[in-house]
Amino acid sequence: MELGPSKSVVVRRVSSTTNEERPDEVIVEEPLSIRLDGTLVATTMRTPGNDFELAVGFLHAEGMLEGAEIQTVRHCGEATTTASKFNTVSVDTACTAPPPTPRLGSTSSSCGICGTEAIETLTERLVTLPEGPAVDPMLMIDVANRVRDKQELFARTGSVHAAAAFDASGTILLVREDIGRHNAVDKVVGRLAIDEALPTPGELALYVSGRASFEMVQKAWAAGFGTVVSVSAPSALAIDTALAANIELAGFIRDDEINIYSPRG
Amino acid sequence: MELGPSKSVVVRRVSSTTNEERPDEVIVEEPLSIRLDGTLVATTMRTPGNDFELAVGFLHAEGMLEGAEIQTVRHCGEATTTASKFNTVSVDTACTAPPPTPRLGSTSSSCGICGTEAIETLTERLVTLPEGPAVDPMLMIDVANRVRDKQELFARTGSVHAAAAFDASGTILLVREDIGRHNAVDKVVGRLAIDEALPTPGELALYVSGRASFEMVQKAWAAGFGTVVSVSAPSALAIDTALAANIELAGFIRDDEINIYSPRG
Repeated sequence: MELGPSKSVVVRRVSSTTNEERPDEVIVEEPLSIRLDGTLVATTMRTPGNDFELAVGFLHAEGMLEGAEIQTVRHCGEATTTASKFNTVSVDTACTAPPPTPRLGSTSSSCGICGTEAIETLTERLVTLPEGPAVDPMLMIDVANRVRDKQELFARTGSVHAAAAFDASGTILLVREDIGRHNAVDKVVGRLAIDEALPTPGELALYVSGRASFEMVQKAWAAGFGTVVSVSAPSALAIDTALAANIELAGFIRDDEINIYSPRG
Repeated sequence: MELGPSKSVVVRRVSSTTNEERPDEVIVEEPLSIRLDGTLVATTMRTPGNDFELAVGFLHAEGMLEGAEIQTVRHCGEATTTASKFNTVSVDTACTAPPPTPRLGSTSSSCGICGTEAIETLTERLVTLPEGPAVDPMLMIDVANRVRDKQELFARTGSVHAAAAFDASGTILLVREDIGRHNAVDKVVGRLAIDEALPTPGELALYVSGRASFEMVQKAWAAGFGTVVSVSAPSALAIDTALAANIELAGFIRDDEINIYSPRG
């Protein structure tokens, strides 16, 4: 069965007056490998659907179809699972396209043939985080508001992402900004690593503006953050990764409400 | 001189009642190459500042520093320009880190040693777009509102990007959604390419939710879009790329106001 673009999950919606489980719909995020005339040229994390368009559009943007006539575009995963079958698209030009060379895609190297494998790759490298101090959901919202006040670049440009490390008392340790969310997280983790102050596994919390994708949770896991808070909603794969890591993943902050997607067990 | 994280530009702010040039501050976007023990492992588009943290944080997240002791972290561009000198960071562990292998970074292959070179690479491959039909700024805002109404996945999940092709009369030709903005654009371009309906260079306009980065403008240029409209602000490099392409770049929509960053000449 082809993967759908969204998926139902159960979340805990928390505000100052409510605390209840309810169904929610989250966006699906799965790797797509793009092959041109048999050569793997890129793997990108994407939402399933319109995959042929994505493959052809990517190749076009990269100038890899110069003068070529597309013969066929098809799904052709080598793996045995049905999910992964739809995670590879092969574009065939009967070699009328220039000889393809692998391109840097917009994906992490941990990216597997399907999301489940991507998580398994991390599980081999990283240990499940021990349970750390619980962070009060209302404190998460408060931290989000206070990080915004500390975003100097956002104040100047109105357009930049932020990441921040904070502890269970709500103290913000550092804030970094970048045009790329993943870069902002790397800057936070890099500062802690340079200072030899990476968190005791499970202790600290990471805040990210925007959405929580697989890559964000991967970086939080590798750095040992026990809690991840994002302003917008996470992807389905981000939730599964947080469950594997034993990270509490919260997000979709609206006024005084926030969703808990993966409680720690 | 090290590049700053933001840059002053002159924009034209347009609403139903105003139309005036004024200074604006935009976010800087430049490539950063990360080297580990002499091997180039990744290039990422980032906002300059805290580059050492970004390099170390990236290597940490990728598990490339296992058991290693960092000896030095330094800027070390080979190029002669001062801008590019600060676009390479070398992390040295005296080879105590595992032998590094290149990772897929979150960047386009067109990425050069500095932003100017990235634009030059595109200029070699793509022709400057001829002037097409002007799109009324108020129509751009109207299209942005109407695209939102067509975002089925956004309505379900509250968290997904959109791209759309539209013409100078405001007719929306197609809308695509994805967790990645770049994927949404690829899906739009791919659909047009599969249908052999790519725009006559300069004719059509591209809408993107979120910000306009270098990569977005690169993809629009390669597909022949004469106008790019983003909901949020573009990066400085996106503006320079739009100027090189002769693309009208508009964005930062707030109520009934929009900025024109690169008028077509």
